[in-house]
Amino acid sequence: AEALEANVSGFAKKVWKIGADDPRKPAYGVKVGIALTLVSLFYYVRPLYNGISGNAVWAIMTVVLVFEYTVGGCMHKGLNRFAGTMSAAALALGMHWVASKSGEKLEPFVASGSVLLLAAAATFSRFIPTVKARFDYGVSIFVMTYSFVAVSGYRVEDLAALVLDRIATIAIGIVICLAVCVLICPVWAGQELHLLTARNMEKLASAVEACVEDCFADAAATEAAKRAKSEGYKSVLGSKASEDSQANLARWEPPHGRFGFRHPYDQYPKVGAAMRQCAYCVEALVGCAAHERAPCRVLADACTRVGARCARVLREASTCVATMTTSRRLGVAVADLDAAVHELQGDLRDLPSNLAEETAETSMTETMRLFTVALLLAEIAARVEGVVHAVGTLAT
Amino acid sequence: AEALEANVSGFAKKVWKIGADDPRKPAYGVKVGIALTLVSLFYYVRPLYNGISGNAVWAIMTVVLVFEYTVGGCMHKGLNRFAGTMSAAALALGMHWVASKSGEKLEPFVASGSVLLLAAAATFSRFIPTVKARFDYGVSIFVMTYSFVAVSGYRVEDLAALVLDRIATIAIGIVICLAVCVLICPVWAGQELHLLTARNMEKLASAVEACVEDCFADAAATEAAKRAKSEGYKSVLGSKASEDSQANLARWEPPHGRFGFRHPYDQYPKVGAAMRQCAYCVEALVGCAAHERAPCRVLADACTRVGARCARVLREASTCVATMTTSRRLGVAVADLDAAVHELQGDLRDLPSNLAEETAETSMTETMRLFTVALLLAEIAARVEGVVHAVGTLAT
Repeated sequence: AEALEANVSGFAKKVWKIGADDPRKPAYGVKVGIALTLVSLFYYVRPLYNGISGNAVWAIMTVVLVFEYTVGGCMHKGLNRFAGTMSAAALALGMHWVASKSGEKLEPFVASGSVLLLAAAATFSRFIPTVKARFDYGVSIFVMTYSFVAVSGYRVEDLAALVLDRIATIAIGIVICLAVCVLICPVWAGQELHLLTARNMEKLASAVEACVEDCFADAAATEAAKRAKSEGYKSVLGSKASEDSQANLARWEPPHGRFGFRHPYDQYPKVGAAMRQCAYCVEALVGCAAHERAPCRVLADACTRVGARCARVLREASTCVATMTTSRRLGVAVADLDAAVHELQGDLRDLPSNLAEETAETSMTETMRLFTVALLLAEIAARVEGVVHAVGTLAT
Repeated sequence: AEALEANVSGFAKKVWKIGADDPRKPAYGVKVGIALTLVSLFYYVRPLYNGISGNAVWAIMTVVLVFEYTVGGCMHKGLNRFAGTMSAAALALGMHWVASKSGEKLEPFVASGSVLLLAAAATFSRFIPTVKARFDYGVSIFVMTYSFVAVSGYRVEDLAALVLDRIATIAIGIVICLAVCVLICPVWAGQELHLLTARNMEKLASAVEACVEDCFADAAATEAAKRAKSEGYKSVLGSKASEDSQANLARWEPPHGRFGFRHPYDQYPKVGAAMRQCAYCVEALVGCAAHERAPCRVLADACTRVGARCARVLREASTCVATMTTSRRLGVAVADLDAAVHELQGDLRDLPSNLAEETAETSMTETMRLFTVALLLAEIAARVEGVVHAVGTLAT
C-alpha cells in the first residue's frame, strides 16, 4: 500500500509539474471545457435547439476534434473540416441527383460504387506528400461526409436540409472553437516556433562551450554539471519533427504581434537544419573526446577560444532571432571566430615542432586526439557560420 | 496551356510512381472503400437499418476515423475508440442520474459543470507523455462521448437507448474495420518496423563504405554516383519518428508470421538510436573529408580496410535482423573489424616517422585531415559495435 501511495504521489507531482512549468497547458484544458459549455447552450436554449433541429452533436464533435493547442492548429483543422465538408456535400448532392435518375433498383449500386471509388481515390491521395502535410484531416472529413450524405440519400427525404444542417452545425462549432482559441490566452504556433529556435540556439551555444571545456578539463571534478550542460545539443537533434509541424501550422495563422502577414515561417526549419548539422559535429566531438582524458595543455588555449567564440556567435544569433533584428555585433563575433579559427590552424601547423620539444609528456594518442578535436572544432565553426547564414536569410 | 499540361502530367507521373513503388498504398485506398461499402449495407438493407434505428452514421464515422494503414494502427485506434466511448458513456449515465435528482432547474448547470470539469481534466491529461503516446485518441473520444451523452440527457427521453445505439454502431464499425484490415492484404506495423531497421542498416553500411572510399578517391570522377550512395545515412538520421510510432503501434498487433506474442518491438528503436549515433559520426566524417581533397595514399589502405569491415559488420548485422537469427559470421566480422582498427591505430603511431621521410609530398593540413579521418573511423567502428550490441539484445 505504501509503494502504491508513493507511486500515486510521484505521478501526481509529475502531472503538477507539467502544469506548473507551462500554465498554458491547463489553460488549454479549461478552454476546451469552455468551448464545449458554449456549444451545450445549443441544447439548453430552446430556440437555438430548434434552430439546428437537434443536430447539435455535430457541433460538439467539431469542437472536440478541431480544438488544437495552437491557433494555427485550430485554423488548419477548422478550414480543413469546413472545406472537406463543403466539397463532399456538393459532390454527394450531385451524385444523389444522378443516382435518383437511375431508378429505385440501381440507386444503391450507383451510390455505393461512387463511395467505393471516391473513398479509395481520396484515401490514396493522402500518401501524396503535399496532401499529407496540408490536407490530411480535410481528406478524411471529405470521405466521411461524402459517404454519409451519399448513403443517407437512400433513406432521407430531404437530403438538402440534412446537408445544410450538417454544414451549419459544423460552422457553428468551428466559429466557437476559433473564438475561444484566439480570444482566451491564445497560443500561437509561430511564436512557439520562434521561441523554440532561439532556445535551441542558446542550448547549442552552451553545449559547444561545455564540450570544449570538457575536452581540456583537468579532472572529472564538475563532471555532472558539465555533462548536463553539454547534453543541450540533444534537444537540437530531436526537434526536427516539432519544427516542421509548427512551421506548417504557423502558416495558417493571422498576423499577430510582431509576426506579420508574410512572416518567413518556412525559414525556421532551415535554421533548424543548420543547427542540426552543427549538433551532429558536436555529437562526434563528444564521442571522440570522451575516450581518453589525459590532462593536456597544448592547443588548449586556442581550442577553448574557438569554442567560446562559437558559443558567442550562436548566442548573438539567438538574440538576433529572438528580437527579429540584425545586429552589428553578430558580424563582429563572426569575424572574431574567423580570427580564432585561423590562429588555431596556425597553431596546428606549428605543432609538430612544439611537440618535438615536449614529446615525452604527451603521448602520440593524445596528440591524435588533439588534432581531431581541433579539426572538429574548425568544422563546427564552419557550420556555426552556416547557422549565421540561415539566420541572415531569416532576418531579411 | 502547355506548361499546365506538363505540370499535370508531371504530377500524374509522381502519383503513379507512389502507387507503383508500393502497391499496398492503393490497396489501402481500396480497402477503405470496401469497408465503407460494407457499412453502407446498414442503410440499404431494411432489417439492418431498423436494427440500429438509423444511427448508421456513427458506423461510417468510425470506419473513416479508425481505419489506419497498418493493422497495429487500426487496433490501437479501434481499442482507444471503444474504451473511450464505453467509459465516457458509463460516467455520463451516472452523472445524468445525479443531475436528474437535482431538479429541472439545476440540471443544465450540473451537466454543463461536469462537462467543463471533465473536458478540462481529460484534455490536460493529453500532455502527460504516457497518455499522449498511447491514449491520445481515446481521450478525445472520451471527451466527445461524455459531452454528447451528458448534454443530450436534457432533451432525450431514453438516454440509455441512445447510448446503447451509439456503442453498438461504433462496435460494428470497429469490427468491420478490423476484419477488412486484417483479412485483405494486411500491412503489419511490426513488419514495417523490421524492414525499415534492416534496410536502414544496409544503407548505413553502404554510406560508411562510400564515404571512406570518397576520402581517398583520386578525383571527382564518379562523384555523383558515390554521393548518391553515401547519402544513405541521411535516411537513418531522419527515421526516428517513424521508428517510434511503428514500435508503439506494433505492440497492439496480434502474433503474425515470424512475429510472436512477445516480440521485443521496443528493442528496435534502441537499435535505431545506435544506428543514429553511428550516422552522426559519418555525417561529421563527410563534413571533415569534403573540404580538402588532395590525393593521398598514406593510411589509405588501413582506413579503407576499416571502412570496408565496418560495412561488412553492418551488413551481417542487417542480415541477422532480417532473418531474426544470430549468425557466427557476425562475430567473425566483428573480430576482423577489431583487428583492422588495431592495425590502423598501429599505423597512426608509426605515422610521424613515415611522414618524416615523405614530408615533402604531403602537406601538414593533409596530415591533419588524415588523422581526423582515421580517428573518426575508429569512433565509427566503436559505434558500429554499439549497433551490433543492440542487435544482439534484439536477438535474445
